[in-house]
Amino acid sequence: MSIHSVARHQSHLAWDNSIQPILRVKSGDTVKFDCLDASNGQITPDSTVASVASLVFSNLDQVNGPIFVEGAQPGDTLKVEVLSIETADWGWTACIPGFGLLSDEYPEPALKIWKLNKKGGYTYFNEEKGIKIILCPFAGEMGVARKERGPFSTIPPYNTGGNIDTKHITAGSTLYLPIEVEGALFSMGDGHAAQGDGASLGTAIETPIVAELRFSVVKDRPYTRTPHFKTPPVNVSNEEYYCTTGVEPDLREASRAALRHMVQYLGQEYGLDPVEAYMLCSVTGDLRIHEVVDMPNYLVGLMMPSSIFSQQMS
Amino acid sequence: MSIHSVARHQSHLAWDNSIQPILRVKSGDTVKFDCLDASNGQITPDSTVASVASLVFSNLDQVNGPIFVEGAQPGDTLKVEVLSIETADWGWTACIPGFGLLSDEYPEPALKIWKLNKKGGYTYFNEEKGIKIILCPFAGEMGVARKERGPFSTIPPYNTGGNIDTKHITAGSTLYLPIEVEGALFSMGDGHAAQGDGASLGTAIETPIVAELRFSVVKDRPYTRTPHFKTPPVNVSNEEYYCTTGVEPDLREASRAALRHMVQYLGQEYGLDPVEAYMLCSVTGDLRIHEVVDMPNYLVGLMMPSSIFSQQMS
Repeated sequence: MSIHSVARHQSHLAWDNSIQPILRVKSGDTVKFDCLDASNGQITPDSTVASVASLVFSNLDQVNGPIFVEGAQPGDTLKVEVLSIETADWGWTACIPGFGLLSDEYPEPALKIWKLNKKGGYTYFNEEKGIKIILCPFAGEMGVARKERGPFSTIPPYNTGGNIDTKHITAGSTLYLPIEVEGALFSMGDGHAAQGDGASLGTAIETPIVAELRFSVVKDRPYTRTPHFKTPPVNVSNEEYYCTTGVEPDLREASRAALRHMVQYLGQEYGLDPVEAYMLCSVTGDLRIHEVVDMPNYLVGLMMPSSIFSQQMS
Repeated sequence: MSIHSVARHQSHLAWDNSIQPILRVKSGDTVKFDCLDASNGQITPDSTVASVASLVFSNLDQVNGPIFVEGAQPGDTLKVEVLSIETADWGWTACIPGFGLLSDEYPEPALKIWKLNKKGGYTYFNEEKGIKIILCPFAGEMGVARKERGPFSTIPPYNTGGNIDTKHITAGSTLYLPIEVEGALFSMGDGHAAQGDGASLGTAIETPIVAELRFSVVKDRPYTRTPHFKTPPVNVSNEEYYCTTGVEPDLREASRAALRHMVQYLGQEYGLDPVEAYMLCSVTGDLRIHEVVDMPNYLVGLMMPSSIFSQQMS
């Protein structure tokens, strides 16, 4: 087993199986990735909302790699063990016009810069109001090259992974990806310090990260056709939640309604303005499908952990 | 404060604000409900799959009530504290033709009768394979009458509640419902001994229940337009999960894919046949929206707690 390194500049802007690998590793090897945030360095700790308005979209969501894993053949599975993830000491959350679950209702850009207490493992959303978020870092982008030729945007996820934005794949997790091309051609990026299930705003607490991943080629999991993963033993927090719901004939509309209702609730109970509340939902609220069978209406809940508030939720 | 009782036969088969209340209570009163299972007694511990094929649908999903809460006016909120829920010592799970997230792929009826260890708080899905489910009882149906005249099916949920099938509203939870008619006219039923988020098969571990609920009229929550709820302090279990995903442009299709992939996985790893695996997913797997912003593809995960298996999941 060897340890390899990938630097910040070793990144690319599309999933494309013609991109030459920057590194060849053996099954069982570990790679340490140093990744810029998903703005590709366009947002810094000193940025203002003007930086959101002037974002160059074609430079966003770069991924570091690709890594060629020896012995990986189409039909095999790539096992990716997440050994460690470290954030920077800052992060950002933006309301980007045209992006996010309620993009039609929030047309104006907004930006929040976070100071991350890495040692303590937390950050304040609003220190005065006592709203505190526990950090739970992960990479929003992890994926392998697709078998189809040509460039594919890094914005959506695919069956081969990519922008899966899955908050549960933290240090201690194992991700399985279906391999479609020789060598697998794995890349990653899009560090998040915290995010709720759904990433409702479209941005989490975005941050540069350093991550160590171990790669193995697995031959006996042909049923892995989309990302599978196993969480660490301690994963979902065991605590009180407050939940608003949406009841609609379409799950996405139900998700939007649940989110709108939570924004209203947070405004009423905690005096947050709508875009602040929307950001808070994105970084710590979980969208869960409570019911998807009782046609014609489905029920989606947005669950907020009560512990983020120093005061008791009513 | 008074304690009132509702008997099994005091039920109705539609949400309809013209149904006369069976009980009038004051704000702060507690009511003890004795409810048949959602088959309205059509399925018993001795039933076979023939009972599923001959189910009379128009008799399903009865709810017990309605309860008139004095002082409740349209625009108020009904606070429902779930004080206790007790299951029977048996339950059932059925694959009902035409019903469930994969109804097109599972056209044949199937029935499983469960023996519930109420004292131990568990049941075996398959004792030989060591697959054990922790009981977490709740009522699938809790709701109030709608302002619109006429009968509305008890099968779908509405903004006023009804068949919300929300596994998190267990003993110790508080549910808030928007009141649309004088007296609120609350009813409940559809006992479940355990269910995953999504209720993917359309049936959980269905069981008769006895539940104690406390009702209060709340005047200062006009923003409650769909069900809101607060879970008990200890809610979501804190453990390892194995997750399969679906990546599709539609959340329902992504849910279906995630479910299909888990059925395949459980077949490969635990030798479960498809309908068995589908049932297991419904009673213990949680559908969660991991990503709903990176268009055109969304990601839904089906998360299974590893602890249900005595052997380690690979």
